[in-house]
Amino acid sequence: MIKAGIIGATGYAGEELVRILLRHPDVEIVWYGSRSYVDQPYADVYRNFFKLVEANCFDDDLPQLVQEADVVFTATPQGYLAGVMSEELLEQAKFVDLSADYRLKDVQVYEQWYKIEHKSPQFLAEAVYGLCEIHREDIKKARLVANPGCYTTCSILTAWPLVEAGLIDPDTLIIDAKSGVSGAGRSAKTANLFSEVNESIKAYGVTTHRHTPEIEEQLSLAAGRPLVLSFTPHLVPMNRGILVTAYASLKEGVTEQDLRCVLEQRYQDEPFIRVLPKGVCPETRWVEGSNYVDINVLVDKRTNRAILMGAIDNLVKGAAGQAVQNMNLMFGLPETAGLELVPLFP
Amino acid sequence: MIKAGIIGATGYAGEELVRILLRHPDVEIVWYGSRSYVDQPYADVYRNFFKLVEANCFDDDLPQLVQEADVVFTATPQGYLAGVMSEELLEQAKFVDLSADYRLKDVQVYEQWYKIEHKSPQFLAEAVYGLCEIHREDIKKARLVANPGCYTTCSILTAWPLVEAGLIDPDTLIIDAKSGVSGAGRSAKTANLFSEVNESIKAYGVTTHRHTPEIEEQLSLAAGRPLVLSFTPHLVPMNRGILVTAYASLKEGVTEQDLRCVLEQRYQDEPFIRVLPKGVCPETRWVEGSNYVDINVLVDKRTNRAILMGAIDNLVKGAAGQAVQNMNLMFGLPETAGLELVPLFP
Amino acid sequence: MIKAGIIGATGYAGEELVRILLRHPDVEIVWYGSRSYVDQPYADVYRNFFKLVEANCFDDDLPQLVQEADVVFTATPQGYLAGVMSEELLEQAKFVDLSADYRLKDVQVYEQWYKIEHKSPQFLAEAVYGLCEIHREDIKKARLVANPGCYTTCSILTAWPLVEAGLIDPDTLIIDAKSGVSGAGRSAKTANLFSEVNESIKAYGVTTHRHTPEIEEQLSLAAGRPLVLSFTPHLVPMNRGILVTAYASLKEGVTEQDLRCVLEQRYQDEPFIRVLPKGVCPETRWVEGSNYVDINVLVDKRTNRAILMGAIDNLVKGAAGQAVQNMNLMFGLPETAGLELVPLFP
Amino acid sequence: MIKAGIIGATGYAGEELVRILLRHPDVEIVWYGSRSYVDQPYADVYRNFFKLVEANCFDDDLPQLVQEADVVFTATPQGYLAGVMSEELLEQAKFVDLSADYRLKDVQVYEQWYKIEHKSPQFLAEAVYGLCEIHREDIKKARLVANPGCYTTCSILTAWPLVEAGLIDPDTLIIDAKSGVSGAGRSAKTANLFSEVNESIKAYGVTTHRHTPEIEEQLSLAAGRPLVLSFTPHLVPMNRGILVTAYASLKEGVTEQDLRCVLEQRYQDEPFIRVLPKGVCPETRWVEGSNYVDINVLVDKRTNRAILMGAIDNLVKGAAGQAVQNMNLMFGLPETAGLELVPLFP
Repeated sequence: MIKAGIIGATGYAGEELVRILLRHPDVEIVWYGSRSYVDQPYADVYRNFFKLVEANCFDDDLPQLVQEADVVFTATPQGYLAGVMSEELLEQAKFVDLSADYRLKDVQVYEQWYKIEHKSPQFLAEAVYGLCEIHREDIKKARLVANPGCYTTCSILTAWPLVEAGLIDPDTLIIDAKSGVSGAGRSAKTANLFSEVNESIKAYGVTTHRHTPEIEEQLSLAAGRPLVLSFTPHLVPMNRGILVTAYASLKEGVTEQDLRCVLEQRYQDEPFIRVLPKGVCPETRWVEGSNYVDINVLVDKRTNRAILMGAIDNLVKGAAGQAVQNMNLMFGLPETAGLELVPLFP
Repeated sequence: MIKAGIIGATGYAGEELVRILLRHPDVEIVWYGSRSYVDQPYADVYRNFFKLVEANCFDDDLPQLVQEADVVFTATPQGYLAGVMSEELLEQAKFVDLSADYRLKDVQVYEQWYKIEHKSPQFLAEAVYGLCEIHREDIKKARLVANPGCYTTCSILTAWPLVEAGLIDPDTLIIDAKSGVSGAGRSAKTANLFSEVNESIKAYGVTTHRHTPEIEEQLSLAAGRPLVLSFTPHLVPMNRGILVTAYASLKEGVTEQDLRCVLEQRYQDEPFIRVLPKGVCPETRWVEGSNYVDINVLVDKRTNRAILMGAIDNLVKGAAGQAVQNMNLMFGLPETAGLELVPLFP
Repeated sequence: MIKAGIIGATGYAGEELVRILLRHPDVEIVWYGSRSYVDQPYADVYRNFFKLVEANCFDDDLPQLVQEADVVFTATPQGYLAGVMSEELLEQAKFVDLSADYRLKDVQVYEQWYKIEHKSPQFLAEAVYGLCEIHREDIKKARLVANPGCYTTCSILTAWPLVEAGLIDPDTLIIDAKSGVSGAGRSAKTANLFSEVNESIKAYGVTTHRHTPEIEEQLSLAAGRPLVLSFTPHLVPMNRGILVTAYASLKEGVTEQDLRCVLEQRYQDEPFIRVLPKGVCPETRWVEGSNYVDINVLVDKRTNRAILMGAIDNLVKGAAGQAVQNMNLMFGLPETAGLELVPLFP
Repeated sequence: MIKAGIIGATGYAGEELVRILLRHPDVEIVWYGSRSYVDQPYADVYRNFFKLVEANCFDDDLPQLVQEADVVFTATPQGYLAGVMSEELLEQAKFVDLSADYRLKDVQVYEQWYKIEHKSPQFLAEAVYGLCEIHREDIKKARLVANPGCYTTCSILTAWPLVEAGLIDPDTLIIDAKSGVSGAGRSAKTANLFSEVNESIKAYGVTTHRHTPEIEEQLSLAAGRPLVLSFTPHLVPMNRGILVTAYASLKEGVTEQDLRCVLEQRYQDEPFIRVLPKGVCPETRWVEGSNYVDINVLVDKRTNRAILMGAIDNLVKGAAGQAVQNMNLMFGLPETAGLELVPLFP
């Protein structure tokens, strides 16, 4: 059994990790880290785990944790892991970091968008961007995986094959994304109260959202050259789910059939990507609770644009599920181990 | 007192008309038309009106209705009013049509998008498109006003000044719109059941939504030349509200300040349009229950694009409130009469 | 024009007061009190009021406020008003207190349930319990009105006539109440985050909720003797609304018709109470945004029990609307002034 | 592998059966029965199963089905199974009926509450009421199990031990229940549209709900004598979940500790019942997606009443999960097989 420790186990991503790992056939959770709830029973914080988890929350003692665990998941605020990371830690355990600390290869881009100094840029080169469908082979060999953001996972996987194949003009790419509220985290903020969020929709972080450079860096790899694009997130009154609707101009002569062919070929062996039948739009309800990414594309001949659509569960494929998928790859387990989650509807 | 009749009073737009007209100082409702509920008390269908409305529902007897009413509101399926309209009717009462029958000037465009034959195209030239902020003077003189669609109202008002002023490239205009579920109407469809819609978001009508040509026709007027654009609606799990997020490339040298200046100047005397302070994004919760349109624009210098945003209550400014605003203009009443509705929050 | 000041204007009850008073024909708001937002524009806190309210928030300077205002509404935490109240203040302005400070006549009961010392019990005798339908004449003469709680308003008005008429056994009265989330207030607590409250229902404050003694004290007046009863509140994932379902054993020989007759007679002249038609259950959606109380009663012959049901909007009849109704009575205005609010649906 | 057939696979209970059985280690689904969708791919009806279920929907051919299946689940309208049941069918396959046809032992009670004639009362004696925690041994030997209703499962399990132990007066039992909307089924009814149900709560079926006699019949077994009780269901704007709040007078001298002891002893070996820690109220969010029943009880000394509370997921323990639990017992499988579902939150 692989021994897993979680730092930040009482955030929503951490809690979803617990849900998944509890039923993972090859993993045992040995550390429920939570500064805010040290010594309190974990199941007092999340009562869904009553009678399922007996453990108390522990403090963030990484040196101790790496001695007890084979893998450490950090679902922590930006800057935490970068501030404590060391060669010594990496020699003792593998790390899947759900924060943004090691996602961007260019430390200046990180510091510019996150407004904090990066304390351990020396590990950026080694860290692997944990989008399994794109960087699978590198992940298998990695000690430190940077688990992608929720919006970025959905955005990149939806657009990657079409950018890579050169069927759309990446300079025209506009991503309009919509997220459920769990993406905003569990800290007590007036803006995220039920009565503030319910019965409303808004854009936020317009032109400044931190997932923008992450999407750009990855899709630049697909395009083979640097890209900038528009990314606008919206807050939707639902618990879970991200929907991406993206727009791009078609290269000359490209048809909807061409686009769908490329999607299907690129993803034909992917266990977690479902290219939907022609004309069927992704809906977040069909992936809830699962690690699936539902994708499709339509062409508007009048405007010669492609409309790309993708849907994920932000806490699963957008966070904890993908983290487990990365762990599976890092430890040579079947990639789908513990992740054969059937979407829950309604 | 102006006597008003409503055909289709038991749909959501009809019901909202009743809510507004009941408190309109100059109007009396004389006809609650509803084929489905003939002879049943209107307040049995909508119990919010218990003790407020004593009347029963009537059948759709337009010849009789125009004798009793000064103004007829038709909140009816596409094709209904076009199928019965006549010069005789128009001589006896003014009409505000909440359906799409007289919105598009080009009958071929209508028939192509709505897949039905237009039975009275002879009135298309006379009918006035009832977007008060754009066609105010024509509306004042009209006998027949085509009340705009909900998505179109929000889309056009958000983009009009910038297109008109030539600050954005209208050929790059992409409108990503999000609507509450009341926009889908009150007919019993599995797709609109609570458990189907709740906790999910989806795009629908992609590349084919009927509000597309309506937006194009109007914005072509603003641009002074024909336009095509991308329009994608989404269904959001909330009762009311439409949010439009639109994207367009800036003309060279245009700044955010330029855009905001144009918006503020164009709308400075408009009672129902609120150009928000710099950097503040519209949210549907702030306009719920009111006739307001909240608008703003941001510039993304990295991509040289403008992000235009607008929010309305789909049942008020997107339907019944705008219909009353049109009626006010047609009868020489103060434009805001009966419409000084303070948004309800939370 | 009556000049009104609000202390606690940035809570949900205070905000609803603003919504109602802005359209009250005889009132002008002169003071938007909010400790948390001093000197900030009120419309920055609640953007629904953008272009409707220009004022900034003021601090809680009651001595100054009573010189500028004819009436003071305090939507403040328990203990605030009791801590500052004085004869001098009461001589200069009338007070409608939305907190619990003057609701209970017995100071010991107050201190026992609220766990705080009452700092001005000398005003308890003078204070009038502001349930207009029960204490109308006293309210007209009052300087200090204790505005009832949301649960209590709905519970008392639903049960009062049947208790008063002796048709049910008040010792068997069990009140199972359900509330929307706005009743929990606007302070930032994890428990009230969207993702914590959405898609769930729970009881809370079981056997200990502070509205219990308030209901008991008032219904004891109806019964003519002291009562104890069971009261259990529940949190429902919706913004507004309270539904009360209450159970009581029937006195011998009492029929549903008897109960309905008593309800209808007791409330026949009440502008805000709607006794629904036989067999129709109240639903919170039909009163949203209005000052109505919808009431009905059914009899279960098998168990010889009455099931009493009542629905209100917790922020209107349960808070701000009732406060304005009280003010209307205190100032000799028509009781419905500013309160002819048509319920908003959907 | 046990071969399972589902009649009524496209209702919500049927769909949940599919979700659970797909991951059951010992079961293979061989028949997706749905009259409404014959020959259509099942995954077109529920797109969460895209790439998970390849089968098409079949018609309701029971004689054929029992040849292919070892167990038949009927998630069908009342009267369906009673109308077709025969000794021949029962000899070929085991049946778990999710309808009410075989739940009530007294055919007259069935016909009185359901207003339909029972076509095969000869099987009522043989049929076993499938509440595993109560009738486990009988279920193990059964050919025909009547799967309990959702409200009844939650109500009975919450109250059973206290009634059985004689600690509460069962004649005073009042059950106030609250359900999510999926309990209303998937048929297209205006009353269940999103905009009708959202942002509201109501009681319905007051004094007449069909789960009443089912609760009474079972709790009469616990009491050892016939009982009548009050049962009132409410509709809550959420997808899943049932919360029961029940009230009963305590027998003399009984304490909260006594009640909790009895609950804990009665359920100490039950894998799916969680008696919560003292003072913790059940919430539906903590059981969502799982087969758990969360239970607790509090005592109100002032009124000498017990407040009993229980929470389940109506589609799992209230329908499909319990059906699988019954199947496990009938086939000698571990009772928890396929049901080790961790609650999904948020």
